[in-house]
Amino acid sequence: MKLLYPTSLYLDPSLLTGFPTLTLHPYDPRAPTIPDDLLDATILVTWANSPQNLRHAVNFMPNLRWIQSLAAGPNDVLAAGFDPAAVTITTGSGLHDRTVAEHALALLLASARKLHEMRDFQTKDEWPGHLGGPQPDRPAGAFTTLRDARVLIWGFGNIAKTLTPYLTALGASVRGVARSAGVRGGIEVFGEDKLPELLAETDALVMILPGDESTRHALGKERLGMLPRHAWVVNVGRGSTVDEEALVEALEGGKLGGAALDVFETEPLPKESRLWGQKNVVVSPHAAGGRPQGAEALVVDNLRRFFAGQTLRNVI
Amino acid sequence: MKLLYPTSLYLDPSLLTGFPTLTLHPYDPRAPTIPDDLLDATILVTWANSPQNLRHAVNFMPNLRWIQSLAAGPNDVLAAGFDPAAVTITTGSGLHDRTVAEHALALLLASARKLHEMRDFQTKDEWPGHLGGPQPDRPAGAFTTLRDARVLIWGFGNIAKTLTPYLTALGASVRGVARSAGVRGGIEVFGEDKLPELLAETDALVMILPGDESTRHALGKERLGMLPRHAWVVNVGRGSTVDEEALVEALEGGKLGGAALDVFETEPLPKESRLWGQKNVVVSPHAAGGRPQGAEALVVDNLRRFFAGQTLRNVI
Ligand SMILES: NC(=O)c1ccc[n+]([C@@H]2O[C@H](COP(=O)([O-])OP(=O)(O)OC[C@H]3O[C@@H](n4cnc5c(N)ncnc54)[C@H](OP(=O)(O)O)[C@@H]3O)[C@@H](O)[C@H]2O)c1
Ligand SMILES: NC(=O)c1ccc[n+]([C@@H]2O[C@H](COP(=O)([O-])OP(=O)(O)OC[C@H]3O[C@@H](n4cnc5c(N)ncnc54)[C@H](OP(=O)(O)O)[C@@H]3O)[C@@H](O)[C@H]2O)c1
Repeated sequence: MKLLYPTSLYLDPSLLTGFPTLTLHPYDPRAPTIPDDLLDATILVTWANSPQNLRHAVNFMPNLRWIQSLAAGPNDVLAAGFDPAAVTITTGSGLHDRTVAEHALALLLASARKLHEMRDFQTKDEWPGHLGGPQPDRPAGAFTTLRDARVLIWGFGNIAKTLTPYLTALGASVRGVARSAGVRGGIEVFGEDKLPELLAETDALVMILPGDESTRHALGKERLGMLPRHAWVVNVGRGSTVDEEALVEALEGGKLGGAALDVFETEPLPKESRLWGQKNVVVSPHAAGGRPQGAEALVVDNLRRFFAGQTLRNVI
Repeated sequence: MKLLYPTSLYLDPSLLTGFPTLTLHPYDPRAPTIPDDLLDATILVTWANSPQNLRHAVNFMPNLRWIQSLAAGPNDVLAAGFDPAAVTITTGSGLHDRTVAEHALALLLASARKLHEMRDFQTKDEWPGHLGGPQPDRPAGAFTTLRDARVLIWGFGNIAKTLTPYLTALGASVRGVARSAGVRGGIEVFGEDKLPELLAETDALVMILPGDESTRHALGKERLGMLPRHAWVVNVGRGSTVDEEALVEALEGGKLGGAALDVFETEPLPKESRLWGQKNVVVSPHAAGGRPQGAEALVVDNLRRFFAGQTLRNVI
């Protein structure tokens, strides 16, 4: 039985050995096709595959039973047309927790401390004196610090769980929104029905939702309107979850403090997007994750489950 | 006995009452003079005073015995010419720990995640694709994350102690440099004699030194040369501690990764400074602190000590 692992990142194949009937084969996921002698593989590990490569796999790998994506949101695999009923698809959720949480924290702090605005002054050799020196402490109607800030994390999965302690250490009060409500690790998590109350009490909204039909334009005109005028939106989940047209309108209408976005409805962000020119929009080029951590351990755990006939981890 | 408190920030005088012989008087520290009827005061609390105001106090307040600055580094009080032998000067060290530590963290993360470079692309409506998508994990010779980064904090006082747990939570390994060596709160702190070894093993150097003669140009050409070429310097202490000429030369010579500076030899940073135009310099306008937290508690503790004839806290 063949497992194909991608050469688009460093994986140590010796950490995947020990399953007697399994053979391990590297492949180039950026090539337009899977090599002929590997097309009979049972298991495909994917990372940064080209769309053609995945389409070739859909059409020419009849024995494929399981795809282990190393991405937390394997939208590329689903877009290629694999049928989740025929092929088990597991995600790399958990491999990106620390990298994405770190980037989300960077965007939150940069937004609060107005590093983008400082940069705009620096570009003109100008000292942004209004942002420095003696300052009012936590001025009303402004997001200037995480200390005592009310942060709402929408999509309270693995990444959110890693991000939360960073935020509470800095003095923020954190609440979450997910499909099911309840207290998770000491943090109150609510269902989407509570959004009107929650959004109204939010200084910074962090979106970490997956990109599927259920989350499309989750943050649209109406919900943007529920946020205080000074609130910032940070999105490190998927671009499809935010209605960018409504976001631009809220920003231009002075109804929102700003937005720091790592993901967009279309990536790269098209030249004609009105987001580019917004003073209080920070454009980050899908840079939060992109570096799976501990992929071998996840693959091994799922291999053991696979051979034991148990349910795999991270099935979508 | 009169205590004068400044109106340049919100202080609650009711939290300072309870000392029978003491009367409390607000004053405007930005005014050029202290009002005549307050010139006989014994205790002066300072925050954001104008240089003229402090010079007036030096010359016309004969009974002054104690100045409580709310700044962690009361360089303004010293520059005005008060004689520390005649007037006890106490600093506001401790009141800025969380604000300055938060800003230092923001600058560190923004440097690692290259938010300044992203902004420069955004200004041109350009997608900085090289900073996003699948990325090499912790590439050699680059500072891209705090995870496993080697952070050296030079000036390991109150602010450093607050910053350190944020950094270790993000996976950094932290060491310190101070006047006296030893383990502090689980962190190894070294004397300056160990700088050659320490600097060579540093990905990010955080300067949180006070600005006095002992620290002037502490980071100059020679020590800059001991840092790896990819290392970043973050300075949230005092600008006088870094030789800016040597810093610019190290940057232009490709001998340093970059520098995120909140403090400068001259503030505002003069138009002619060569720092403005450096691609990998982040100019922050002395914005880290500026918002004392819990000033009343420090003043009360020192008032009690003052009346008890005990040593005050934070004497310089
Ligand atoms: N920017 C980047 O570079 C980058 C990198 C990695 C991942 N991501 C994105 O981040 C997403 C989250 O990753 P993760 O590992 O944290 O995922 P996860 O552990 O699967 O968590 C997903 C969370 O979203 C919630 N959710 C899903 N659908 C929802 C809906 N319709 N309404 C409300 N909540 C919903 C889930 O609710 P329940 O907990 O109630 O099930 C869960 O809390 C990924 O799917 C990916 O798109 C981005
Ligand atoms: N950017 C801003 O907005 C902002 C705001 C607040 C403060 N600051 C600056 O930050 C500085 C530090 O504040 P803090 O509250 O952390 O001060 P602190 O608690 O007094 O700590 C100062 C540290 O510097 C060390 N140190 C002093 N002189 C030294 C020398 N010559 N060589 C090596 N180490 C030396 C001390 O060593 P020992 O521990 O061995 O005594 C101590 O660890 C302030 O003085 C101020 O200038 C800047």
